[in-house]
Amino acid sequence: MIALERIRERMAGLVSEGVLAEEEALRESHARAVWTCLTEPGDAVAGAAIDALGAADALDLALEGAGRQTSDERWKAGLARWMPRVSTVDDALDRARRSGSRLLTPLEEAWPVGLSDLGAHAPHAVWVRGALGATAGAPGVALVGARAATAYGEHVATELSAGLTTSGIAIVSGGAYGIDGMAHRAALAAGGTTIAVLAGGVDRLYPAGHADMLRRVAASGGAVIAEAPCGTTPTKWRFLQRNRLIAALSAATVVVEAGWRSGSLNTAGHAASLGRPLGAVPGPVTSAASAGCHRLLREYDARCVTSVDEVRELLGETAGTRLPEGTRTDHTSRLADALSTRSPRPLADVARRAGFSVDDAQTLLGFAELEGTARRTAAGWLSTGR
Amino acid sequence: MIALERIRERMAGLVSEGVLAEEEALRESHARAVWTCLTEPGDAVAGAAIDALGAADALDLALEGAGRQTSDERWKAGLARWMPRVSTVDDALDRARRSGSRLLTPLEEAWPVGLSDLGAHAPHAVWVRGALGATAGAPGVALVGARAATAYGEHVATELSAGLTTSGIAIVSGGAYGIDGMAHRAALAAGGTTIAVLAGGVDRLYPAGHADMLRRVAASGGAVIAEAPCGTTPTKWRFLQRNRLIAALSAATVVVEAGWRSGSLNTAGHAASLGRPLGAVPGPVTSAASAGCHRLLREYDARCVTSVDEVRELLGETAGTRLPEGTRTDHTSRLADALSTRSPRPLADVARRAGFSVDDAQTLLGFAELEGTARRTAAGWLSTGR
Repeated sequence: MIALERIRERMAGLVSEGVLAEEEALRESHARAVWTCLTEPGDAVAGAAIDALGAADALDLALEGAGRQTSDERWKAGLARWMPRVSTVDDALDRARRSGSRLLTPLEEAWPVGLSDLGAHAPHAVWVRGALGATAGAPGVALVGARAATAYGEHVATELSAGLTTSGIAIVSGGAYGIDGMAHRAALAAGGTTIAVLAGGVDRLYPAGHADMLRRVAASGGAVIAEAPCGTTPTKWRFLQRNRLIAALSAATVVVEAGWRSGSLNTAGHAASLGRPLGAVPGPVTSAASAGCHRLLREYDARCVTSVDEVRELLGETAGTRLPEGTRTDHTSRLADALSTRSPRPLADVARRAGFSVDDAQTLLGFAELEGTARRTAAGWLSTGR
Repeated sequence: MIALERIRERMAGLVSEGVLAEEEALRESHARAVWTCLTEPGDAVAGAAIDALGAADALDLALEGAGRQTSDERWKAGLARWMPRVSTVDDALDRARRSGSRLLTPLEEAWPVGLSDLGAHAPHAVWVRGALGATAGAPGVALVGARAATAYGEHVATELSAGLTTSGIAIVSGGAYGIDGMAHRAALAAGGTTIAVLAGGVDRLYPAGHADMLRRVAASGGAVIAEAPCGTTPTKWRFLQRNRLIAALSAATVVVEAGWRSGSLNTAGHAASLGRPLGAVPGPVTSAASAGCHRLLREYDARCVTSVDEVRELLGETAGTRLPEGTRTDHTSRLADALSTRSPRPLADVARRAGFSVDDAQTLLGFAELEGTARRTAAGWLSTGR
């Protein structure tokens, strides 16, 4: 059992108390810190409770109700997921303090407004190492791509990052080897702001080989941020969820190099679903490292970008041509509602049920397939239940 | 002065007399042969007269009227262009005979139907060296690109050409060095049908370094064809006009490698204006030889193609997404009517006058700019009067 009084004590210095002057706001902020420890990113039950009650009351309800019977099966399953993690909260907050990390919540001005476009899928808070306001200022561009990058891809990532940085644009990426790392390094070298979004905790700089680089990112006016609390290891799910933050933090996403099934396509899918401009850098058709970029150009209406100027143009553009306006949440829910886990439904049927054009439904299903939430069968589309 | 009787004698063996059994058809065919000698491709005055009167009567009118006064200034200017070339007819027909070339007109079954989609801009006849029916059969794909091709571009052209040929698809190209030559050669090596469309006469195999290859094209079930009569040298204008034949002869056009201002973009423009699918092969953004392909992807809605299968898919597709249905002629005339040579007009004004959406007007103006018929100024679009 954790009392919020004790949390308050442990959270001293981890939140911007000047901003959170009001008692209620502070209580809310502390509860959000705890929720980051109890839940996986995208926990819909916790999200609904926090939206309905506020983080603090939802947390009280969870902690008080843990010992009691409830007939709400989803809440019961939630408690079963969250309660085993109560014991990790102290450690997470200690690690945050030791690593110089701080909590940032939507209650604060430094909160990046782009994250709110994720709607019900927005994180409740993020942990930040570095400049708390790094994500709040100038527009950022996500430069992402394959870990197994080629010399060509690394060259292009470096050129784009350095050029955009010089225009005062922040470079957002995932801190990984390959394209991500080159994008961060080039931004640092050009004296610009760069933001690394991690799948695990910001105290565990991952990958280990990039720990020095990530420390420099945090120390150079940029930030290393994560939704997961300190101490968390990255998992496949957390990487996928992390990608939605990269897309949401950026005014545009550019995939520099990506294999046919690269994780960068997941980030691209999030950008497109958010109605944010999506660019892909072409490469030789003989290079497997560009196959994912060409797939984005062919199947997902990404814009072909070949220079810094063309990325800058992308920033001036609105949503992609094929995706309807609106937030990812709306589309995702409408699509999920139109799919069954048991009866495959033909494209036209899914489109009709969801109220999308067939073209739009196809694009959204394509992204859902990339994300593993929908599956294509000979008889039609199925929900995977994820 | 040339009498059609004398032409008939000189044309013996140059036309398919079995097909053209009727006297009137034969007379028409012979007149078309003469017209190819008198006019440049795209001569609108000759075209209108042939459309109105038939080639034979139009020719009679021109030859008889040459000595007389006329108040029709356009016709007078036409006579001034055509009559100096009357003396070249004998030589052109002799050269055709010596080079084993034959005339093909829309009166014959072997006439490639695709050419008729050019409407008022369709050639009145073409000269063919090789298989008269080579262009009438299976769907052809135009593989075109830069003369200054890289090893990468030549590799991709070879792969695509060989793969498509194996599927029974004819490869159409321009016989030039670089991409064109590789496309022809790979088709020949794979035992397929390939068609080279020349800007000059089919007796002057141009470029000289490709004379042997072009002879093999004609001897291997394919054809070397040209709108210009034998003896004609290629000129810039004839290259541009030749490009419209490449596009019209092909069910789809793919640009493999092209510089920023490559002539291949002109062929691409013709394909798109004809409502034929247009593909572009991406390449490294660091390669100037791919800049034109990336431009087609960015500005002209070309489809990104990276494999034989993707080109085959292109064949199954209908017109590009942004261009309205219809023939090049309709669009070109409507666009030309909407432009002035003196008053620059803003895009929206041009679109309104021509009855196009702003998007469509922009695409068409882009192509007109590539072809040099329209010019962009700070105050709006101007016709160049061409």
